[in-house]
Amino acid sequence: MGRWEPNARGRLERAALELYVERGFEQTTVAEIAARAGLTERTFFRHFADKREVLFWGAGSLQELLAGALVGAPESAAPIDAIAAALEAAGAIFQEREASVRRRQRIIAANADLRERELIKLAELASAMADALRLRGVSDLTASLTAEAGIAVFRIAFERWINATDQGDLPHFIRESLDELKAVLTGG
Amino acid sequence: MGRWEPNARGRLERAALELYVERGFEQTTVAEIAARAGLTERTFFRHFADKREVLFWGAGSLQELLAGALVGAPESAAPIDAIAAALEAAGAIFQEREASVRRRQRIIAANADLRERELIKLAELASAMADALRLRGVSDLTASLTAEAGIAVFRIAFERWINATDQGDLPHFIRESLDELKAVLTGG
Repeated sequence: MGRWEPNARGRLERAALELYVERGFEQTTVAEIAARAGLTERTFFRHFADKREVLFWGAGSLQELLAGALVGAPESAAPIDAIAAALEAAGAIFQEREASVRRRQRIIAANADLRERELIKLAELASAMADALRLRGVSDLTASLTAEAGIAVFRIAFERWINATDQGDLPHFIRESLDELKAVLTGG
Repeated sequence: MGRWEPNARGRLERAALELYVERGFEQTTVAEIAARAGLTERTFFRHFADKREVLFWGAGSLQELLAGALVGAPESAAPIDAIAAALEAAGAIFQEREASVRRRQRIIAANADLRERELIKLAELASAMADALRLRGVSDLTASLTAEAGIAVFRIAFERWINATDQGDLPHFIRESLDELKAVLTGG
């Protein structure tokens, strides 16, 4: 049993992201991450299963946040409005952590395996959101379509935010993309 | 140089799908596929890079079909109508090949790696459709959103078709899912 290290998880995460940007994800070893964080490899493996998990452990919290927001939305809210509110709440959290979200995104964009993993996580997110809508009594087809449309809007808004030169606000991009999707589908 | 084998590709594909269903994808070897088709392993590798490619080589033709339909749609067609027509055309081809499409789907559903590969192919398809819309002069944001919405509709329609007990028609499920998505987004 190693001794308890204050904020070991946060230190390991920061060290890993720095190294993935500097040297590339493939080239970085767990030993280097631990050394940069001033911790041991053993401590690393108490917090993360492998070096990829450093990039994806947040997906679980994001899923809980989105599902929780959906289940807790006012009963009167239409499915698409419940999804929009949940995505904007998630967007606001991303916005607060902008520097590390952008760094993470650069790492993922540079590696095909990581891009694939990200796609899978997004598909799982869509499926969890559809389940949450079903718990609200939304029909199967409507739940799936609303959740998939929501994830499409989120992905595209996220990409625009990442590429925006004016550092706009992510929740704003989400609202704008959703409005545009509505216009597209009604032939507007 | 081996001798030319009449319809070797089709025979190999049929043999592979049969074996993947009977024994599982993982458990099947290329040697077994070639033997079942009455051909050599060498012939197999002239047609397919590996046993996974037997399941995914069709994605290229599907992409060409969809992009071609989009580029060739009437100039006056709204992006969403161009996408709907392209997807229904693809759906009609799936419908014609129903038995082998269903068999392929069963194989993919049973294997996590294959499900991941399928997700990636769908993302590539969405990106190719968005590019085709841009060639029609559609704006960047609209092109991405329309293509992503189209793929979401197609995926969900496809799933409903696969699970349908009444063996309904795939283009019909596509139209129905698109109409439902429109209703969802306008809060209908």
